[in-house]
Amino acid sequence: MAEGTEFSERETKTIGVLTSGGDAPGMNAAIRAVVRYGIHQGYQVLGINRGYHGLCRGEIMELTKHDVSEKLQKGGTFLMTARSKSFMTPEGLAQAVSMSKVFKIDCLVVIGGDGSFRGAENLAKEGLPVIGIPGTIDNDIGCTEYTIGYDTAMNTAMECIDRLKDTASSHERCSVIEVMGRHAGYIALNVGICCGAEVVLLPEDPGEFDQVVIKRLLECRNAGKNHYVVVVAEGAGSAVDIAKKIEEKTGISSRATVLGHLQRGGSPTVRDRLTASLMGVRAVECINQNRLNRVIVERNGRVDDLDIFEALAITKNLDEKVLAYAESIAL
Amino acid sequence: MAEGTEFSERETKTIGVLTSGGDAPGMNAAIRAVVRYGIHQGYQVLGINRGYHGLCRGEIMELTKHDVSEKLQKGGTFLMTARSKSFMTPEGLAQAVSMSKVFKIDCLVVIGGDGSFRGAENLAKEGLPVIGIPGTIDNDIGCTEYTIGYDTAMNTAMECIDRLKDTASSHERCSVIEVMGRHAGYIALNVGICCGAEVVLLPEDPGEFDQVVIKRLLECRNAGKNHYVVVVAEGAGSAVDIAKKIEEKTGISSRATVLGHLQRGGSPTVRDRLTASLMGVRAVECINQNRLNRVIVERNGRVDDLDIFEALAITKNLDEKVLAYAESIAL
Amino acid sequence: MAEGTEFSERETKTIGVLTSGGDAPGMNAAIRAVVRYGIHQGYQVLGINRGYHGLCRGEIMELTKHDVSEKLQKGGTFLMTARSKSFMTPEGLAQAVSMSKVFKIDCLVVIGGDGSFRGAENLAKEGLPVIGIPGTIDNDIGCTEYTIGYDTAMNTAMECIDRLKDTASSHERCSVIEVMGRHAGYIALNVGICCGAEVVLLPEDPGEFDQVVIKRLLECRNAGKNHYVVVVAEGAGSAVDIAKKIEEKTGISSRATVLGHLQRGGSPTVRDRLTASLMGVRAVECINQNRLNRVIVERNGRVDDLDIFEALAITKNLDEKVLAYAESIAL
Amino acid sequence: MAEGTEFSERETKTIGVLTSGGDAPGMNAAIRAVVRYGIHQGYQVLGINRGYHGLCRGEIMELTKHDVSEKLQKGGTFLMTARSKSFMTPEGLAQAVSMSKVFKIDCLVVIGGDGSFRGAENLAKEGLPVIGIPGTIDNDIGCTEYTIGYDTAMNTAMECIDRLKDTASSHERCSVIEVMGRHAGYIALNVGICCGAEVVLLPEDPGEFDQVVIKRLLECRNAGKNHYVVVVAEGAGSAVDIAKKIEEKTGISSRATVLGHLQRGGSPTVRDRLTASLMGVRAVECINQNRLNRVIVERNGRVDDLDIFEALAITKNLDEKVLAYAESIAL
Repeated sequence: MAEGTEFSERETKTIGVLTSGGDAPGMNAAIRAVVRYGIHQGYQVLGINRGYHGLCRGEIMELTKHDVSEKLQKGGTFLMTARSKSFMTPEGLAQAVSMSKVFKIDCLVVIGGDGSFRGAENLAKEGLPVIGIPGTIDNDIGCTEYTIGYDTAMNTAMECIDRLKDTASSHERCSVIEVMGRHAGYIALNVGICCGAEVVLLPEDPGEFDQVVIKRLLECRNAGKNHYVVVVAEGAGSAVDIAKKIEEKTGISSRATVLGHLQRGGSPTVRDRLTASLMGVRAVECINQNRLNRVIVERNGRVDDLDIFEALAITKNLDEKVLAYAESIAL
Repeated sequence: MAEGTEFSERETKTIGVLTSGGDAPGMNAAIRAVVRYGIHQGYQVLGINRGYHGLCRGEIMELTKHDVSEKLQKGGTFLMTARSKSFMTPEGLAQAVSMSKVFKIDCLVVIGGDGSFRGAENLAKEGLPVIGIPGTIDNDIGCTEYTIGYDTAMNTAMECIDRLKDTASSHERCSVIEVMGRHAGYIALNVGICCGAEVVLLPEDPGEFDQVVIKRLLECRNAGKNHYVVVVAEGAGSAVDIAKKIEEKTGISSRATVLGHLQRGGSPTVRDRLTASLMGVRAVECINQNRLNRVIVERNGRVDDLDIFEALAITKNLDEKVLAYAESIAL
Repeated sequence: MAEGTEFSERETKTIGVLTSGGDAPGMNAAIRAVVRYGIHQGYQVLGINRGYHGLCRGEIMELTKHDVSEKLQKGGTFLMTARSKSFMTPEGLAQAVSMSKVFKIDCLVVIGGDGSFRGAENLAKEGLPVIGIPGTIDNDIGCTEYTIGYDTAMNTAMECIDRLKDTASSHERCSVIEVMGRHAGYIALNVGICCGAEVVLLPEDPGEFDQVVIKRLLECRNAGKNHYVVVVAEGAGSAVDIAKKIEEKTGISSRATVLGHLQRGGSPTVRDRLTASLMGVRAVECINQNRLNRVIVERNGRVDDLDIFEALAITKNLDEKVLAYAESIAL
Repeated sequence: MAEGTEFSERETKTIGVLTSGGDAPGMNAAIRAVVRYGIHQGYQVLGINRGYHGLCRGEIMELTKHDVSEKLQKGGTFLMTARSKSFMTPEGLAQAVSMSKVFKIDCLVVIGGDGSFRGAENLAKEGLPVIGIPGTIDNDIGCTEYTIGYDTAMNTAMECIDRLKDTASSHERCSVIEVMGRHAGYIALNVGICCGAEVVLLPEDPGEFDQVVIKRLLECRNAGKNHYVVVVAEGAGSAVDIAKKIEEKTGISSRATVLGHLQRGGSPTVRDRLTASLMGVRAVECINQNRLNRVIVERNGRVDDLDIFEALAITKNLDEKVLAYAESIAL
């Protein structure tokens, strides 16, 4: 690892940047900040297409300041992203490291989620210095309070549910909406609060169905409500199944909507453009200060950085109290 | 029918207004216009909750100018809507007519789709004068070029597809989107053009799958495209099935999204608020001029009205040429 | 003019396309349709930068199908636009015609407003065949019911006013909003209806201030309203002045907002993308059928085309009745 | 003050809630949370109309859970707000305290900005227990990292500037946009970063005009840019004046837009609905735990509370480094 933490002797150092895993709004803003601030600080910046897959295949080209013009407000990632099975093998890893040497990459900035960070960790262990920037709409990375794309995804989901409430109230129905979140209920919980959802189902603890859903909806009905919103994280159940069960058990007409990939796209919000920009700058600052193998994070509401090996061991949990509050103010 | 076309002798005439069938953005704007312009012209206006169901049950109350304040910009229908099986029976119809007499309704304004207009026709035949206002997101009523809610639904679908394109292009995928339209492909065709869809599947003529979808996508791929949008009207197939088939036959990673009820809600666009307002005013003008049993329509780009019995026999068809244009400019 | 209406003998004919005057959302969609459908029909298509200014200077390059990719949803015009004084002179006109010959342009498609069409007419008289496509947010071209950009501009203005109503109602104020429209009140009138404006001031007939504004607002206040929206077309007065006068004469706290250029930008709506696409196709169809010197228009709700010399003599007027309706349903 | 910090002996305690100062999106969400969570915890909750003005006049009525239904997503404040000069006098303050006793208010929740908190402090000194919730779009309250409404205002400004960029780039102009912020440049700085503004002018240190604006714009032009965005906080200058000066000194065509009250309205974003809800709950929790005369704040990225007398002495400053970063990545 020693060689990974010191730079080569060449005059101009080279930063590589890639996006990996599921795309998230704000990734382009992060790439732009790495490119622009990197060049401003005297680096050459190389963009790598299609994540680790493209790294192994050498899909690498220089990025100029102009190349990232008009990207700030665009959803998705113009470097594209892909999942690479071969990179998970020792041969693939060696190929990635070798290709980094071919292009003389001194430090690789990886924008992505938990899985992408594991890959970065492996590269670091092989001597390629890395910096991780958290980019995933799920906000499910333990070491950071915030991940790029999360705010846009939540606002998209919220706007969709606001629309669905119009028709649910016109027809006096229950609208069951499935949002992203296989293992983490951050989107479901926050969006549920923001939309006044009567019921929120989290993967962390979906609870006993009859108590958490059926009894609750009937209590709401008995208190005079005539339309309902149930928000379910994909890891906590299927909206279609839940809508069926609600209709069978309560007689309340119910409709399911699966937001799915809708939550991934769209022009990033202020929070995502801003956090992505500041995290991109921070990544270059770390490289500048020769603090390599770091993960850029948000801690205590501020952009910060942590050692990547320590960072990946950190876990975080939903604040259970918030769920109780959510229920108290929804009725 | 004779008695239906003349007003009673009471000083203040009474207009009833209801919304029926699926809700559509702009219905509230139409109700508001009927109420405000009706009162302005000297009528009493009664609102009927839950469509024909509420008419049969006498869920009827007076609406003042103030009651429709802050409704113009709201999606859905504050009078709510419901489907009524009993109203389809002779007993139900008689009950509806009888209840209209109890509340001394001189003319009933029905805001809804094709099915709702059939109900209005039946009431007219029983001597209750009616005026129909076309409100449905599907634009599938033969006698009018435009139905309230159509523009909002299309803009919602378009914005969703714009978002989905971000993630489709980041992952180099095919995004298959199912939009409303069981029997009519208006939404699918127009939204397809507006989003640059490579393929649009219509219920009118979905064509032979391998030719229309598979061959076309491969042509696009061969011309250098690396992400694709397929828009399918619900009556032309299931997005989930189509995405599967595309992936199997072409190897292009594909994802399905069913927009479903998302397309129903939301604050109405300019076109829907405006058309709804002008149609509501026109309905009252017809009553004013004792031209009853009419349907308010858009003809040649203008608000107009037609005899309800003649209107319901009119059919309209998609312009096939437009589909050909759509394909030509998508590639 | 004779030579203008027949094509040269070269195998591949060449279409030039430019945007002129104020930019409007949907112009890019129109360019894209001309380029894609033109190439599809066997033409070479040249894009001209900066309108007539660039035509005179020969800022002309070939456009491929790929060059217009990802343009459909973008506001503004990627060909840019400019006002050219020299083009208004005989020398400038001659220079433009001469440059058209240099680039062997067989027909020039001009996307713009009334002034741009006058320029096109002049070119036609000099023997350069032209096709006009109406693109301006003001909808103030007499020969067409619709101009590209109008719907997006109105929706932008409406959304802004919806926001302003939130704060006007919180503070119990009068919000005076100035919208585009120097000579034509289309935006002001329609947006006024869509936002429930208590007062709408049009350039066509702003009326006597005390009657139309002061008396009206006081009537609304006396009827129980505590916040108000006044929409004024820029040609009918200044929002800042009007807000001052209202505050002085009625004591109602008033605030002015000038929407200005905000109304020009933004991703085009369904109506604008669709109309622009179909008009672009129609332009190529006209060229195909050797029907040159035409203006593409919307007539009776459909895309159509007219002789450019006859078209420019047509005038249209606001429907005064609509203003009366607007007032009736705002209170 | 002693009597202020202990509750009376009545069984049901009473919470009063008011909004004061400029309205901000999310205020309704905060009121809703106070009402719903307050009732859930056994309190009676009274709503006070028009801020301190209404408190003095006794414009006070009970709020039920149902009264705050459908308010979560609404911009502005349904309790309305007003500035009260008389409340600033000793007589006015005494009147406010006296009216609180008439309605047996045990604790008053004040949602507003810095000035509103000064008023709350005065009430606390007179023995009326208070809780402050920071609600202002300017984010200019020293004791808290976040104020309700800030995120929505920034997103609104950003979307407006995104639109203005379309037309600025079409016409190759400089767009000068004036945003809120008389004394604090938070909105200007963050929105400037999010929109890639070439120049940001802050009230904290607008700098020397020729250096900060003129030289910078010319550098950008010389680097190949042909359109520009200048964001100016209202406290740092007038957009109209600045646009004029730019045009005079650089010859770059420039246009000014004053966003003004547009930034106040609109449905709140996720961040504002969520923070407002959690702050409202926290206010009731404080009352529950008899921790009165507190200000609810965001500290280290979390909802927290501070003693009101200490809190109001805290100041905060813009991070100057961020401005430097902003410039580095805009070019």
